[in-house]
Amino acid sequence: MHIYDLDTPAVVIDIDVLERNIQQMAAHCKGLGITLRGHTKSHKNPAIARMQVASGSRGIVCQKLGDAEVMAKAGLDDILMTYNIVGRQKVRRLTELARWRKMTVTADSEEVVRGISDQARIDGVRVGVLVEMDTGGKRTGVQSPEAAAQLGQLVMGLPGLELRGLMTYPSLTSGKAFMDAAVEKFHELGLPTSIISGGGTGHEAISKQLGCTEHRSGSYVYEGLSRISRNEDLDPQRCPLRVVTTVVSVPTRDRVIIDGGMKTFRLFPTYPYGKIIEEPDASIYGMSVEHGHVDVSKCSRKFKVGDRLTVIPLYQEGVTNLHEEITGFRKGEVELVWRVEGRGKVR
Amino acid sequence: MHIYDLDTPAVVIDIDVLERNIQQMAAHCKGLGITLRGHTKSHKNPAIARMQVASGSRGIVCQKLGDAEVMAKAGLDDILMTYNIVGRQKVRRLTELARWRKMTVTADSEEVVRGISDQARIDGVRVGVLVEMDTGGKRTGVQSPEAAAQLGQLVMGLPGLELRGLMTYPSLTSGKAFMDAAVEKFHELGLPTSIISGGGTGHEAISKQLGCTEHRSGSYVYEGLSRISRNEDLDPQRCPLRVVTTVVSVPTRDRVIIDGGMKTFRLFPTYPYGKIIEEPDASIYGMSVEHGHVDVSKCSRKFKVGDRLTVIPLYQEGVTNLHEEITGFRKGEVELVWRVEGRGKVR
Repeated sequence: MHIYDLDTPAVVIDIDVLERNIQQMAAHCKGLGITLRGHTKSHKNPAIARMQVASGSRGIVCQKLGDAEVMAKAGLDDILMTYNIVGRQKVRRLTELARWRKMTVTADSEEVVRGISDQARIDGVRVGVLVEMDTGGKRTGVQSPEAAAQLGQLVMGLPGLELRGLMTYPSLTSGKAFMDAAVEKFHELGLPTSIISGGGTGHEAISKQLGCTEHRSGSYVYEGLSRISRNEDLDPQRCPLRVVTTVVSVPTRDRVIIDGGMKTFRLFPTYPYGKIIEEPDASIYGMSVEHGHVDVSKCSRKFKVGDRLTVIPLYQEGVTNLHEEITGFRKGEVELVWRVEGRGKVR
Repeated sequence: MHIYDLDTPAVVIDIDVLERNIQQMAAHCKGLGITLRGHTKSHKNPAIARMQVASGSRGIVCQKLGDAEVMAKAGLDDILMTYNIVGRQKVRRLTELARWRKMTVTADSEEVVRGISDQARIDGVRVGVLVEMDTGGKRTGVQSPEAAAQLGQLVMGLPGLELRGLMTYPSLTSGKAFMDAAVEKFHELGLPTSIISGGGTGHEAISKQLGCTEHRSGSYVYEGLSRISRNEDLDPQRCPLRVVTTVVSVPTRDRVIIDGGMKTFRLFPTYPYGKIIEEPDASIYGMSVEHGHVDVSKCSRKFKVGDRLTVIPLYQEGVTNLHEEITGFRKGEVELVWRVEGRGKVR
């Protein structure tokens, strides 16, 4: 069955391109001499996580506990949660995971580490901890090397926790002084630094320069937005994720309407919406909730209702999170259907 | 159980406010002398659709077949699909629905109506058709009153179809000449106009001025974006949908980070992200995938990890489409949990 024969809108993945992206990132990190830890938030799909690990990712990264639970059930192990786990319900789910999987979390406050320690002690499990530093990302993370060391010392003294090192996001060259000072303080105090974890697709070499032992990348599996941010094209040879759509209306010579809108593509501001593979001169200029609005004034061919158009979406992670199933294909022919097991796991 | 005791991020609905919104829109349309037909795309929830019908909505509107199937199974009837149904798989699902529900579709081309007619004839069912006009919305719809009449005549001659009238979206005063001419042509040709359907929350009075017999509104159940577009506040007395979040990090005095980001709220460009009910002086200034970034520099209180903050999201329809379940409450106390049955039904 050809992907054009699927009912639309259909989210599809070119498996050949996906495999190549996964292998190339593993080779890139190996060449840099830094361990890759594959993030799973872009795909939320245990099958793709297994491909990452098989190609050389050391364990995986999850952003929400619901994702980690899905991955653990699917056999993935050595899971890093780069998220402050807060509240009794979540902490209990974390210690439950720690019974059968090697779990490491990042943390940036006393409240977070004490909450996890209390439950880990009751449940008799050990949870690894990396102290998260805000080295310029201005999101979460302690604000100084001193605060990192102070939190590290606290973790060392709390039952049920095992301090494993430090973490930052994203890896920025401007954060080097902060990181060097934090590592030095950890060494002075005899705190472990077996993991120094940097992150961000495209920031692999920076992590190496910063002295990180491992690097977290995720969006490399699909590329898309990361390519646009590097002023590169949405190349079908690099972007495996696509949405097959159908032309449902040809109201004027200049405009066709496709059957995917915001609820299929997830609108992303300021950038273009995506690229139509079959018609490089067509431009998606707007989206309503269930319709995509395409300017075809520069196309030479005549469009008709029922035509299929394949879109490389810009923000691929947003697309996967909207759909339950994704069809894998090679050379246009359907090979399998994956369930996006982690879709909608916001807790 | 108080909504603050739910694990977060938790999408919740103030049922009292929801009921009032539904009743007020029904009263508004009754006052104008126009029939309300409630759109269900904002909530995708059969329970809320039933509330719309119980308050005076004449049937319902769906934008995708998957939504219509969910609503039909839940007992809703007289379903208008404001979407060109294209392709064999979809047309068969439509005729399947027409076996046991009164189905009406909009259409703007010969291809669409012939495709439906072919299958309806085979299956021995009747599908109602409204000719969709582009009276200024510049999306789908025929481009002239003449084209509307021509398509209407074609529908009259096709088996399995029952022409029921005309449709436009959105209802615009600038579209009056187009609509008057189309209705006149329909009358001249003896084509039925038992339904002349206008649409868009806030456009009810315009539909009446345009001579519409019914008006399609949907986002009124939650308000939100429609209020902001009228320069009104995201008032908790008008906006029943909220997201209860937890503060997971207090990195600086000016900034707190909550546990809901783009995958909880769905980013909407150019507008603010939402309003925090407990802290009117706080401002959500950014969102990463799973984190919300809140500026609290103007707040007098001190925040700590674990604090609950309740956000009225701006783009409420985008939120419901990301979550499987929504908790209904009255006066802060949990009353029930609704499944968002239509979530992710893009086909």
